[in-house]
Amino acid sequence: MAPAPSCPLCAQDGGQLVWRGAKLRVIRADEAGFPAFYRVVWHAHVAEFSDLNATDRAHCMDAVALVEQALREHLQPVKINLAALGNMVPHLHWHVIARFGWDSHFPAPVWAAAQRERAAEREEQVRSQLARAEAHMGLGLARL
Amino acid sequence: MAPAPSCPLCAQDGGQLVWRGAKLRVIRADEAGFPAFYRVVWHAHVAEFSDLNATDRAHCMDAVALVEQALREHLQPVKINLAALGNMVPHLHWHVIARFGWDSHFPAPVWAAAQRERAAEREEQVRSQLARAEAHMGLGLARL
Repeated sequence: MAPAPSCPLCAQDGGQLVWRGAKLRVIRADEAGFPAFYRVVWHAHVAEFSDLNATDRAHCMDAVALVEQALREHLQPVKINLAALGNMVPHLHWHVIARFGWDSHFPAPVWAAAQRERAAEREEQVRSQLARAEAHMGLGLARL
Repeated sequence: MAPAPSCPLCAQDGGQLVWRGAKLRVIRADEAGFPAFYRVVWHAHVAEFSDLNATDRAHCMDAVALVEQALREHLQPVKINLAALGNMVPHLHWHVIARFGWDSHFPAPVWAAAQRERAAEREEQVRSQLARAEAHMGLGLARL
Protein backbone atom coordinates (compact mmCIF):
# COMPACT_ATOMS: atom_id res chain seq x y z
CA MET A 1 0.00 0.00 0.00
CA ALA A 2 1.59 3.26 -1.14
CA PRO A 3 1.64 6.31 1.15
CA ALA A 4 -1.25 8.69 0.48
CA PRO A 5 -0.06 12.15 -0.62
CA SER A 6 -2.04 14.29 1.80
CA CYS A 7 -2.22 11.91 4.77
CA PRO A 8 -0.54 13.26 7.92
CA LEU A 9 0.04 9.73 9.28
CA CYS A 10 1.84 8.75 6.08
CA ALA A 11 3.98 11.91 6.22
CA GLN A 12 5.07 11.79 9.86
CA ASP A 13 4.96 9.75 13.06
CA GLY A 14 2.00 11.77 14.38
CA GLY A 15 3.36 12.32 17.89
CA GLN A 16 6.24 11.42 20.17
CA LEU A 17 7.54 8.08 18.91
CA VAL A 18 7.59 5.39 21.62
CA TRP A 19 8.28 2.35 19.49
CA ARG A 20 8.49 1.49 15.83
CA GLY A 21 8.16 -2.00 14.39
CA ALA A 22 7.85 -3.43 10.90
CA LYS A 23 4.10 -2.93 10.63
CA LEU A 24 3.10 -0.40 13.24
CA ARG A 25 4.33 2.26 15.62
CA VAL A 26 3.27 3.52 19.03
CA ILE A 27 3.25 7.24 19.66
CA ARG A 28 2.39 9.40 22.64
CA ALA A 29 -0.11 12.05 21.61
CA ASP A 30 -0.12 15.56 22.99
CA GLU A 31 -3.78 15.96 23.95
CA ALA A 32 -4.50 18.61 26.56
CA GLY A 33 -5.87 17.12 29.77
CA PHE A 34 -4.97 13.52 28.91
CA PRO A 35 -1.33 12.90 29.80
CA ALA A 36 -1.49 9.17 28.99
CA PHE A 37 -2.95 9.26 25.50
CA TYR A 38 -1.24 6.88 23.09
CA ARG A 39 -1.87 5.83 19.53
CA VAL A 40 -1.05 2.59 17.79
CA VAL A 41 -0.60 3.62 14.15
CA TRP A 42 -0.59 1.04 11.37
CA HIS A 43 2.16 2.06 8.92
CA ALA A 44 0.31 1.18 5.72
CA HIS A 45 -2.37 3.56 4.55
CA VAL A 46 -5.56 1.58 5.13
CA ALA A 47 -8.74 3.22 6.38
CA GLU A 48 -10.59 0.47 8.19
CA PHE A 49 -9.67 -2.25 10.67
CA SER A 50 -11.31 -4.84 8.42
CA ASP A 51 -8.95 -3.83 5.59
CA LEU A 52 -6.33 -5.87 7.47
CA ASN A 53 -6.17 -9.64 7.12
CA ALA A 54 -6.67 -11.81 10.20
CA THR A 55 -2.94 -12.09 10.96
CA ASP A 56 -2.41 -8.34 10.78
CA ARG A 57 -5.55 -7.65 12.82
CA ALA A 58 -4.28 -9.95 15.56
CA HIS A 59 -0.84 -8.32 15.49
CA CYS A 60 -2.38 -4.85 15.66
CA MET A 61 -4.62 -5.74 18.60
CA ASP A 62 -1.81 -7.53 20.42
CA ALA A 63 0.02 -4.18 20.29
CA VAL A 64 -3.08 -2.33 21.50
CA ALA A 65 -3.50 -4.79 24.41
CA LEU A 66 0.15 -4.46 25.30
CA VAL A 67 0.01 -0.67 25.45
CA GLU A 68 -3.18 -0.99 27.50
CA GLN A 69 -1.55 -3.41 29.95
CA ALA A 70 1.50 -1.19 30.44
CA LEU A 71 -0.77 1.77 31.20
CA ARG A 72 -2.86 -0.29 33.63
CA GLU A 73 0.18 -1.62 35.44
CA HIS A 74 2.08 1.66 35.77
CA LEU A 75 -0.69 4.22 36.09
CA GLN A 76 -3.64 2.37 37.66
CA PRO A 77 -6.24 4.25 35.61
CA VAL A 78 -9.89 3.78 36.50
CA LYS A 79 -10.55 2.78 32.86
CA ILE A 80 -8.86 2.37 29.51
CA ASN A 81 -10.59 3.76 26.43
CA LEU A 82 -9.87 2.25 23.02
CA ALA A 83 -11.07 3.71 19.74
CA ALA A 84 -10.40 3.61 16.02
CA LEU A 85 -12.40 6.46 14.49
CA GLY A 86 -10.47 8.08 11.64
CA ASN A 87 -13.22 10.38 10.45
CA MET A 88 -10.72 13.20 9.97
CA VAL A 89 -7.64 11.10 9.21
CA PRO A 90 -8.80 7.87 7.55
CA HIS A 91 -5.52 6.03 8.17
CA LEU A 92 -5.89 3.19 10.70
CA HIS A 93 -4.83 4.28 14.18
CA TRP A 94 -6.02 3.15 17.57
CA HIS A 95 -6.39 5.58 20.44
CA VAL A 96 -5.39 4.00 23.77
CA ILE A 97 -6.25 6.42 26.57
CA ALA A 98 -5.80 6.00 30.31
CA ARG A 99 -8.77 7.60 32.07
CA PHE A 100 -8.96 8.81 35.66
CA GLY A 101 -11.92 9.77 37.82
CA TRP A 102 -10.39 13.23 38.26
CA ASP A 103 -9.72 13.91 34.56
CA SER A 104 -11.54 16.82 32.94
CA HIS A 105 -14.05 14.63 31.08
CA PHE A 106 -14.58 11.45 33.10
CA PRO A 107 -16.90 9.54 32.79
CA ALA A 108 -17.68 11.15 29.44
CA PRO A 109 -15.61 10.22 26.39
CA VAL A 110 -12.63 12.51 25.76
CA TRP A 111 -14.45 13.86 22.68
CA ALA A 112 -17.49 15.03 24.67
CA ALA A 113 -17.87 18.20 26.71
CA ALA A 114 -15.62 18.68 29.75
CA GLN A 115 -17.14 17.82 33.13
CA ARG A 116 -14.76 19.82 35.33
CA GLU A 117 -11.51 21.80 35.49
CA ARG A 118 -8.23 20.09 34.73
CA ALA A 119 -6.11 18.89 37.65
CA ALA A 120 -2.60 20.04 36.77
CA GLU A 121 -0.85 18.35 39.69
CA ARG A 122 -2.46 15.00 39.08
CA GLU A 123 -1.70 15.24 35.36
CA GLU A 124 1.92 15.94 36.26
CA GLN A 125 2.00 12.94 38.57
CA VAL A 126 0.80 10.71 35.72
CA ARG A 127 3.35 12.28 33.40
CA SER A 128 6.13 11.36 35.82
CA GLN A 129 5.25 7.65 35.43
CA LEU A 130 5.22 7.58 31.63
CA ALA A 131 8.90 6.81 31.09
CA ARG A 132 8.57 3.56 33.01
CA ALA A 133 5.31 2.65 31.30
CA GLU A 134 6.86 3.31 27.89
CA ALA A 135 9.95 1.24 28.70
CA HIS A 136 7.57 -1.61 29.59
CA MET A 137 5.71 -1.12 26.28
CA GLY A 138 8.92 -1.16 24.31
CA LEU A 139 10.07 -4.45 25.84
CA GLY A 140 6.72 -6.11 25.21
CA LEU A 141 6.27 -4.78 21.70
CA ALA A 142 9.69 -6.00 20.68
CA ARG A 143 8.56 -9.54 21.55
CA LEU A 144 5.40 -9.46 19.42
CA MET B 1 -16.52 -14.82 35.78
CA ALA B 2 -19.78 -14.37 37.70
CA PRO B 3 -22.35 -11.78 36.59
CA ALA B 4 -22.00 -8.48 38.46
CA PRO B 5 -25.13 -7.62 40.48
CA SER B 6 -25.67 -4.07 39.23
CA CYS B 7 -24.31 -4.40 35.70
CA PRO B 8 -26.89 -3.71 32.97
CA LEU B 9 -24.96 -5.82 30.43
CA CYS B 10 -24.99 -8.79 32.81
CA ALA B 11 -28.73 -8.35 33.43
CA GLN B 12 -29.93 -8.00 29.84
CA ASP B 13 -28.88 -8.05 26.18
CA GLY B 14 -28.50 -4.27 26.09
CA GLY B 15 -30.34 -3.72 22.79
CA GLN B 16 -32.01 -5.58 19.95
CA LEU B 17 -30.32 -8.98 19.79
CA VAL B 18 -28.81 -9.73 16.37
CA TRP B 19 -26.79 -12.80 17.22
CA ARG B 20 -25.77 -14.72 20.32
CA GLY B 21 -22.80 -17.06 20.51
CA ALA B 22 -21.06 -18.91 23.32
CA LYS B 23 -18.81 -16.01 24.31
CA LEU B 24 -20.34 -12.86 22.88
CA ARG B 25 -23.45 -11.33 21.38
CA VAL B 26 -24.15 -8.65 18.81
CA ILE B 27 -26.89 -6.15 19.48
CA ARG B 28 -28.30 -3.20 17.57
CA ALA B 29 -28.35 -0.15 19.79
CA ASP B 30 -31.07 2.46 19.69
CA GLU B 31 -29.01 5.64 19.48
CA ALA B 32 -30.81 8.66 18.05
CA GLY B 33 -29.29 9.81 14.76
CA PHE B 34 -27.20 6.68 14.21
CA PRO B 35 -29.37 3.99 12.64
CA ALA B 36 -26.47 1.56 12.16
CA PHE B 37 -25.00 1.51 15.65
CA TYR B 38 -24.09 -1.99 16.83
CA ARG B 39 -22.39 -3.39 19.88
CA VAL B 40 -20.36 -6.53 20.29
CA VAL B 41 -20.86 -7.45 23.94
CA TRP B 42 -18.62 -9.98 25.66
CA HIS B 43 -20.84 -12.16 27.86
CA ALA B 44 -18.46 -12.44 30.81
CA HIS B 45 -18.18 -9.45 33.10
CA VAL B 46 -14.67 -8.18 32.38
CA ALA B 47 -13.88 -4.48 32.26
CA GLU B 48 -10.92 -4.22 29.93
CA PHE B 49 -9.96 -5.71 26.56
CA SER B 50 -6.65 -6.87 28.03
CA ASP B 51 -8.55 -8.89 30.64
CA LEU B 52 -9.14 -11.38 27.82
CA ASN B 53 -6.50 -13.91 26.85
CA ALA B 54 -5.06 -13.85 23.32
CA THR B 55 -7.51 -16.43 21.96
CA ASP B 56 -10.54 -14.59 23.32
CA ARG B 57 -9.21 -11.22 22.13
CA ALA B 58 -8.83 -12.60 18.61
CA HIS B 59 -12.33 -14.10 18.71
CA CYS B 60 -13.78 -10.83 19.95
CA MET B 61 -12.06 -8.77 17.25
CA ASP B 62 -12.99 -11.28 14.53
CA ALA B 63 -16.59 -10.60 15.51
CA VAL B 64 -16.00 -6.82 15.48
CA ALA B 65 -14.39 -7.04 12.02
CA LEU B 66 -17.24 -9.16 10.74
CA VAL B 67 -19.89 -6.69 11.90
CA GLU B 68 -17.81 -3.92 10.36
CA GLN B 69 -17.54 -5.74 7.04
CA ALA B 70 -21.28 -6.41 6.87
CA LEU B 71 -21.98 -2.71 7.50
CA ARG B 72 -19.46 -1.66 4.86
CA GLU B 73 -20.83 -4.03 2.27
CA HIS B 74 -24.52 -3.29 2.78
CA LEU B 75 -24.53 0.38 3.77
CA GLN B 76 -21.43 1.88 2.14
CA PRO B 77 -20.70 4.20 5.06
CA VAL B 78 -18.01 6.82 4.63
CA LYS B 79 -16.30 5.47 7.77
CA ILE B 80 -16.66 2.88 10.49
CA ASN B 81 -16.00 3.93 14.07
CA LEU B 82 -14.90 1.34 16.64
CA ALA B 83 -14.62 1.98 20.34
CA ALA B 84 -14.45 0.19 23.67
CA LEU B 85 -14.92 2.84 26.35
CA GLY B 86 -16.98 1.49 29.26
CA ASN B 87 -16.57 4.48 31.56
CA MET B 88 -20.23 4.24 32.58
CA VAL B 89 -20.69 0.49 32.11
CA PRO B 90 -17.34 -1.21 32.73
CA HIS B 91 -18.35 -4.48 31.04
CA LEU B 92 -16.45 -5.09 27.80
CA HIS B 93 -18.46 -4.00 24.77
CA TRP B 94 -17.35 -2.71 21.40
CA HIS B 95 -19.27 0.01 19.63
CA VAL B 96 -19.32 -0.55 15.86
CA ILE B 97 -20.87 2.48 14.20
CA ALA B 98 -21.44 3.17 10.50
CA ARG B 99 -20.84 6.86 9.86
CA PHE B 100 -22.11 8.95 6.97
CA GLY B 101 -21.12 12.39 5.73
CA TRP B 102 -24.71 13.54 6.26
CA ASP B 103 -25.09 12.23 9.82
CA SER B 104 -25.70 14.76 12.58
CA HIS B 105 -22.15 14.60 13.94
CA PHE B 106 -19.82 13.72 11.08
CA PRO B 107 -16.81 14.12 11.04
CA ALA B 108 -16.93 14.54 14.83
CA PRO B 109 -17.21 11.47 17.05
CA VAL B 110 -20.78 10.50 17.96
CA TRP B 111 -20.05 11.59 21.55
CA ALA B 112 -19.13 15.15 20.56
CA ALA B 113 -21.45 18.05 19.78
CA ALA B 114 -23.77 17.74 16.77
CA GLN B 115 -22.63 19.43 13.58
CA ARG B 116 -26.00 19.70 11.84
CA GLU B 117 -29.65 18.63 11.90
CA ARG B 118 -30.56 14.99 11.54
CA ALA B 119 -31.58 13.72 8.09
CA ALA B 120 -34.66 11.60 8.77
CA GLU B 121 -35.07 10.30 5.22
CA ARG B 122 -31.50 9.20 4.91
CA GLU B 123 -31.62 7.57 8.31
CA GLU B 124 -34.73 5.69 7.18
CA GLN B 125 -32.98 4.58 4.01
CA VAL B 126 -30.13 3.14 6.10
CA ARG B 127 -32.65 1.47 8.38
CA SER B 128 -34.25 -0.26 5.40
CA GLN B 129 -30.93 -2.03 4.66
CA LEU B 130 -30.29 -3.32 8.16
CA ALA B 131 -32.16 -6.63 7.86
CA ARG B 132 -29.88 -7.72 5.03
CA ALA B 133 -26.74 -6.51 6.81
CA GLU B 134 -27.77 -8.37 9.95
CA ALA B 135 -28.50 -11.58 8.04
CA HIS B 136 -24.98 -11.31 6.62
CA MET B 137 -23.56 -10.78 10.12
CA GLY B 138 -25.42 -13.78 11.47
CA LEU B 139 -24.08 -16.09 8.77
CA GLY B 140 -20.51 -14.90 9.29
CA LEU B 141 -20.64 -14.95 13.07
CA ALA B 142 -21.92 -18.52 13.09
CA ARG B 143 -18.74 -19.55 11.26
CA LEU B 144 -16.32 -17.95 13.74
